[in-house]
Amino acid sequence: MPAFITFLTDFGLQDDFVGTCHGVIKRIAPAAEIVDVTHGIRPGRILQGALTLANALPYMPAGVHLAVVDPGVGGGRRPLALRDAEGRVYVGPDNGLLLPAAERFGGVVAAHELANPAYALESVSRTFHGRDLFAPAAAHLANGVSLAELGPPLDPEALVRLDLPEPEVGPARIRATVLAVDRFGNVALNLTREHLEQASIVPGTRVELVSRGERYFAVAARTFGDARPGDLLVYEDSYRNLAVAVSQGSAATLLGVEEGSDLVLQVDTL
Amino acid sequence: MPAFITFLTDFGLQDDFVGTCHGVIKRIAPAAEIVDVTHGIRPGRILQGALTLANALPYMPAGVHLAVVDPGVGGGRRPLALRDAEGRVYVGPDNGLLLPAAERFGGVVAAHELANPAYALESVSRTFHGRDLFAPAAAHLANGVSLAELGPPLDPEALVRLDLPEPEVGPARIRATVLAVDRFGNVALNLTREHLEQASIVPGTRVELVSRGERYFAVAARTFGDARPGDLLVYEDSYRNLAVAVSQGSAATLLGVEEGSDLVLQVDTL
Amino acid sequence: MPAFITFLTDFGLQDDFVGTCHGVIKRIAPAAEIVDVTHGIRPGRILQGALTLANALPYMPAGVHLAVVDPGVGGGRRPLALRDAEGRVYVGPDNGLLLPAAERFGGVVAAHELANPAYALESVSRTFHGRDLFAPAAAHLANGVSLAELGPPLDPEALVRLDLPEPEVGPARIRATVLAVDRFGNVALNLTREHLEQASIVPGTRVELVSRGERYFAVAARTFGDARPGDLLVYEDSYRNLAVAVSQGSAATLLGVEEGSDLVLQVDTL
Repeated sequence: MPAFITFLTDFGLQDDFVGTCHGVIKRIAPAAEIVDVTHGIRPGRILQGALTLANALPYMPAGVHLAVVDPGVGGGRRPLALRDAEGRVYVGPDNGLLLPAAERFGGVVAAHELANPAYALESVSRTFHGRDLFAPAAAHLANGVSLAELGPPLDPEALVRLDLPEPEVGPARIRATVLAVDRFGNVALNLTREHLEQASIVPGTRVELVSRGERYFAVAARTFGDARPGDLLVYEDSYRNLAVAVSQGSAATLLGVEEGSDLVLQVDTL
Repeated sequence: MPAFITFLTDFGLQDDFVGTCHGVIKRIAPAAEIVDVTHGIRPGRILQGALTLANALPYMPAGVHLAVVDPGVGGGRRPLALRDAEGRVYVGPDNGLLLPAAERFGGVVAAHELANPAYALESVSRTFHGRDLFAPAAAHLANGVSLAELGPPLDPEALVRLDLPEPEVGPARIRATVLAVDRFGNVALNLTREHLEQASIVPGTRVELVSRGERYFAVAARTFGDARPGDLLVYEDSYRNLAVAVSQGSAATLLGVEEGSDLVLQVDTL
Repeated sequence: MPAFITFLTDFGLQDDFVGTCHGVIKRIAPAAEIVDVTHGIRPGRILQGALTLANALPYMPAGVHLAVVDPGVGGGRRPLALRDAEGRVYVGPDNGLLLPAAERFGGVVAAHELANPAYALESVSRTFHGRDLFAPAAAHLANGVSLAELGPPLDPEALVRLDLPEPEVGPARIRATVLAVDRFGNVALNLTREHLEQASIVPGTRVELVSRGERYFAVAARTFGDARPGDLLVYEDSYRNLAVAVSQGSAATLLGVEEGSDLVLQVDTL
């Protein structure tokens, strides 16, 4: 079986950044197989990258998990390789990007700084560590190099962690934050089913959404099939996060929200 | 030779949907090779997906052909696996998406509903059957599982079929429908060369195009090389469909058309 | 080790053009491995394609390098296969696209016109030579077919060459041209560090940029880390080209430039 390298970035596909990293990997580890998770993370949005990686990784073959959303490139942030409790290996910047995924697999059990120039390209630029540092490290790990050869160990407790936005949950009212908007305009929130139940929102409940001072009526539902075209739905998405959608339309456009926007949900008592 | 899985969706590449399906396939069938046909079908446009698949498939290695454009996910539409007369296998929703392709290879000779949970992910969400149902089925088929193991047989005659828009062809006038607009702004129509000949349009004929009440002058041509920059051309595209293009420009922008728009072609008798 | 085919085009990923070429390659050379450099070259921009290929190729495994940015398809331009002094092989149109890359590896030592129908698809369309002519030739080369079998030799000196825009460099003033804008809004110029030094611009120098009649203040810097958010920087990018960037913003949007725009840099003597 080939060694798998999964690959997630905010590089987009318009330029050659992703392709160049593929080339670097293939020169070092020709037999490794690359699975592109996505390269559509919005530029510099570490939280979006971290949550997307954590959601997708259970569906990926175990291997080396390379992720680069790195607005601090060229500054002081450390380049990392990690191993989780199930043996998956991660490569990327020490900015919180990798930790939510690793925590789905028992947490970080070993962390090393990428400091050994033998496992980087000969010349490391100041602005493209994806190509010069992270992709080579991932390729060498796929070839069987051990984490310890890449550089000195770090205390897993000392790694940079993200602050995840927390919802405010009252008895019939929740203030939530938009975590992501997908291609279909579906709006993922920082809520679980448990948060909704605390606010007495269950399938069938009518919910008032407040976005940017405007009010919208929605219904808590199990699936798109429960709604008519144009209806706003609050539902549990396929990653088990709560989300808002419009059947055959874009909830993000309708509500005027994007990643980071506030959204209030309250039980409609009319 | 590896087993090939071709893959077409309307998922786009901004999110991790396509990458996650790749991961699911590779966990089940690590040796299968995935060829991405496109993931740029406009969201929910089954007809565009079906025609793109039918046009592309003759250029693809035979194997398992996975296609997901599925606005009815979570409702009652059936999930399918099909086999055509030449042995190619198809996986996708029963909404007409797969049939124009299968008909290019002799038509459907076997159809089965995906009903065996042994060949789906353990938990099937209501909104992401691409990941939970279709990708696993395609991977198991690539591993050699037979169609019959996936679920009960269906009557191929009872599968959902698309209504393809038919042109109105008169002696010197055709009312056509735009099937697709590509990246270059080229406009594919629901016409063949035979339709043009019925309306007495042959290479060199001057043609008047009517779009949204405006008139444009074009010429029927064999290739872009026959036209000056900015000229509108009516020509047979590389898939042998009739199309309208502007040399070094976007015909779609000029004419103000998109998929589904009406376009009238009439012989310019001036 | 598999034979590698790298692949660069202006086809975009919205349509099935790239996927269809992958399919054509895999039917002919199932064991070849394709590395997509990028398909995001702006439609018809040969210079952008040529520079991107030349920048990326040193990071790619040696093999067959397929590139298609071909606004002259269907006209008289010749289809080519080339070999450079280090044995890398190139396939694409004779419009200058391939030469800057080949010159990084010692220049073209053999050139052949693609003229042997045995190595093209059976029916070659007038508008999609990527699929019908170039992809098949690349696949056959990956299978070990020799350049000479593809068609008659051409004089490498007679190949079409691009005119690269030259900067005007004075003692404290440079008139440059924008070569490319990437996803992050970084603006690559037709300048090297030597040009800047001729104009007495070194790290730390304050520089006035003039774009479309407006003036902007920037600083020559080594890396993004040297600047505050919102500052304009002139720096050497990871491909060793001079570029303009805004830390955590889009320099292209701020300056109102795109590929081909003029940009004047002058030493700020205030």
